[in-house]
Amino acid sequence: MPATVKVVLGKSLREANETWAGRVRDKLRTLGTLAVNLMGSPGCGKTTLLCATLQRLRGLAPAMPLYVVEGDPYTTRDAEAVGAQGVPVVQINTRGGCHLDARMVDEALRHLDLKPRGTLFIENIGNLICPGGFDLGEDLRVALLSAPEGNDKPEKYAAMFRRCDAVVLSKMDLCGPTGFDPGLAREAVRRLNPAAAVFSLSARDGTGMGPWTEWLMDRAAAKRSTADPGGV
Amino acid sequence: MPATVKVVLGKSLREANETWAGRVRDKLRTLGTLAVNLMGSPGCGKTTLLCATLQRLRGLAPAMPLYVVEGDPYTTRDAEAVGAQGVPVVQINTRGGCHLDARMVDEALRHLDLKPRGTLFIENIGNLICPGGFDLGEDLRVALLSAPEGNDKPEKYAAMFRRCDAVVLSKMDLCGPTGFDPGLAREAVRRLNPAAAVFSLSARDGTGMGPWTEWLMDRAAAKRSTADPGGV
Repeated sequence: MPATVKVVLGKSLREANETWAGRVRDKLRTLGTLAVNLMGSPGCGKTTLLCATLQRLRGLAPAMPLYVVEGDPYTTRDAEAVGAQGVPVVQINTRGGCHLDARMVDEALRHLDLKPRGTLFIENIGNLICPGGFDLGEDLRVALLSAPEGNDKPEKYAAMFRRCDAVVLSKMDLCGPTGFDPGLAREAVRRLNPAAAVFSLSARDGTGMGPWTEWLMDRAAAKRSTADPGGV
Repeated sequence: MPATVKVVLGKSLREANETWAGRVRDKLRTLGTLAVNLMGSPGCGKTTLLCATLQRLRGLAPAMPLYVVEGDPYTTRDAEAVGAQGVPVVQINTRGGCHLDARMVDEALRHLDLKPRGTLFIENIGNLICPGGFDLGEDLRVALLSAPEGNDKPEKYAAMFRRCDAVVLSKMDLCGPTGFDPGLAREAVRRLNPAAAVFSLSARDGTGMGPWTEWLMDRAAAKRSTADPGGV
């Protein structure tokens, strides 16, 4: 979206989105269900990380309900990959749109039979810019940066890395062939966002998946305490 | 940009952009200068391809003027990398904006002392969605897809691959570690856009750079014939 449009139209667009995000947030608070918004470039490994994470969480907390909302401009491949794991999933196709918005997520949640005290993953559209400007009612905003993208990306796409709760440095098994330096990337993230948790991992070979899933488990436990015993 | 905004505002926005794109196109037609719009995800290798291409074109056509307009949300690193090769470059920082528009390019061209019968490269913002919707007055729209992004991306980001003149499958030196299949990617592109030229290359090791630069040289030669002898 060009800067001029943001100035002219940003407020009402954002206001409308905030209203829908509030609806999603209220619903999930009553349920005590954690919502995680996964964002990053096309092909940065969001779906692979998601599938590996679901599998780990299943092992660590077999009773915790898991749900996925999948966003893609076109195709249902990612939803099929997630669905093959037996996790309830709703695919949103934006027909070319560059990010999810809270209205889409609210609509998707109506298609999921949400049980209390679960964890919901929202895989956003592959885009390191636009998704960052739209609150989906999530608890955690997670930005992925994959080794092949390069160390310089946090500074170039600063808005995304400034406004997130965690950064996942993904595809760490490709550091050798790509020359990616996770230490430099971590420092770049720290300069922009000292409070963000930073994880280095490879969802493909499993390296580093432990700290990431433990962090999610901690956050899910904290969120469970918000569940309204009378409302769910 | 969400679909609803496109419906409500798309026309006037696009109309304004088309006016600026027409100005850029007229200017470049008079000069007989080819304009190439490079688009692709963050970290797909646009800058590396650009630097390797400039170097090759310098060798093949030492007399041809070369120019670069660099787009980034923040930082001037890419312009510095290009400038180090001695090619005139203007950096556009969109301050977080998700694509270049023709007004920005028109403005950038005023900062370049354009000689006739050259080639201008415009490196768009790293984003596989939004840049595809904005005509910059270019002759050639080139979409990059890098090996680590995966074979499935042409179908997922179909709008970009349908509306381009060429697709560059980049980072082919990473096919081994990533499992990328250039044959499958090429077929996926062909299904969406049978007319697009498709190149497989590695700008890092030089493999496949020949056909790509020859194609650019052919197009630049054709464009030179449009130069207005009285106007330049």
